[in-house]
Amino acid sequence: MKTAPTFDKLVDELSRLPGVGPRTAARLAFFIVKQPEAWVETLAKTLLDVKRKIRFCSICGQTTEEDPCAICADPRRDSRVICVVEEPQDVITIERTHAYHGRYHVLHGAISPLDGIGPEQLRIESLMKRLEDGTVQEVVIATNFTTKGETTALYLARLLHAKNIRVTRPAHGIPLGGNLEYVDENTVGQAVAARQSF
Amino acid sequence: MKTAPTFDKLVDELSRLPGVGPRTAARLAFFIVKQPEAWVETLAKTLLDVKRKIRFCSICGQTTEEDPCAICADPRRDSRVICVVEEPQDVITIERTHAYHGRYHVLHGAISPLDGIGPEQLRIESLMKRLEDGTVQEVVIATNFTTKGETTALYLARLLHAKNIRVTRPAHGIPLGGNLEYVDENTVGQAVAARQSF
Repeated sequence: MKTAPTFDKLVDELSRLPGVGPRTAARLAFFIVKQPEAWVETLAKTLLDVKRKIRFCSICGQTTEEDPCAICADPRRDSRVICVVEEPQDVITIERTHAYHGRYHVLHGAISPLDGIGPEQLRIESLMKRLEDGTVQEVVIATNFTTKGETTALYLARLLHAKNIRVTRPAHGIPLGGNLEYVDENTVGQAVAARQSF
Repeated sequence: MKTAPTFDKLVDELSRLPGVGPRTAARLAFFIVKQPEAWVETLAKTLLDVKRKIRFCSICGQTTEEDPCAICADPRRDSRVICVVEEPQDVITIERTHAYHGRYHVLHGAISPLDGIGPEQLRIESLMKRLEDGTVQEVVIATNFTTKGETTALYLARLLHAKNIRVTRPAHGIPLGGNLEYVDENTVGQAVAARQSF
């Protein structure tokens, strides 16, 4: 289609978003065309605002407008526990559970030699700095349960064990509402091995 | 998360895009935060450009920067055939096949009484106007093969048969590369009924 260069440009730009292929990009672009101009202006402005105002917290690495972020600045959070995650969105996922009241540390990635990402590309040095004053007694390694995430967890665990800090990892197990038949056998195996009294 | 109101606003705005739920919106927003400012500026500008420059062709209803659009203005397109589609993106889908050389007419929707969309909400009157001078000899009704699309096709077919115009519809059948076992039985049934000599 040579009809509309501006339109094609928007499709190109939207295709660069994660998980958005050319077809989805075209669908989004057609949606934009049909929206009121005021909303498109708001969207464009908000995109720029986010890019200009949002930074990463200098302590934990989470996205924030204020530095330090609200969690790092909150005196009610338990500063004896740090939960290490791969990405800022993982903080949101864990916060949503209301099951954790400590601090966070965002690595901004996971060790992945094939992608050229080693420990020095991650926020591991700043994590070690946070442990120096002896306040932190436990580090929860909540990297993903993927190859990269597990590799990163093992690497961190080795570093942290040397520091005489309690190192934990969220439990493997059957998801809530999980039907045994549909849960993969490795998960079931680990869940059985880690069975708890009832 | 009360950390970043600007960020939350972007997530809200992105959630209004079709097929984008709160989780995908958050993923996109985190992606935006990590991109270079120049790209976010380009994206924001392109969104506004599209909204300001793209209009609908006054003849066929397709998205375009120039009115009439490139297809309506192209003297090499066969003006004896009009292909009726539901949405502008359907024009792109059909153009991509290089199998059609006529003109288009975009209805901007399909008949859907439950959504309060009747024939008068669609670009049907302008289609009828295009048939008045007797140039058009065939109308291909390429609305979707869904309940709404079929309803619309039936409605249009009835209107058009009264005008002594050839009315066609793209063939049902087994998709290319389609494995009979995985194609639904209604499609297989229609494909067998419409079998062609080989």
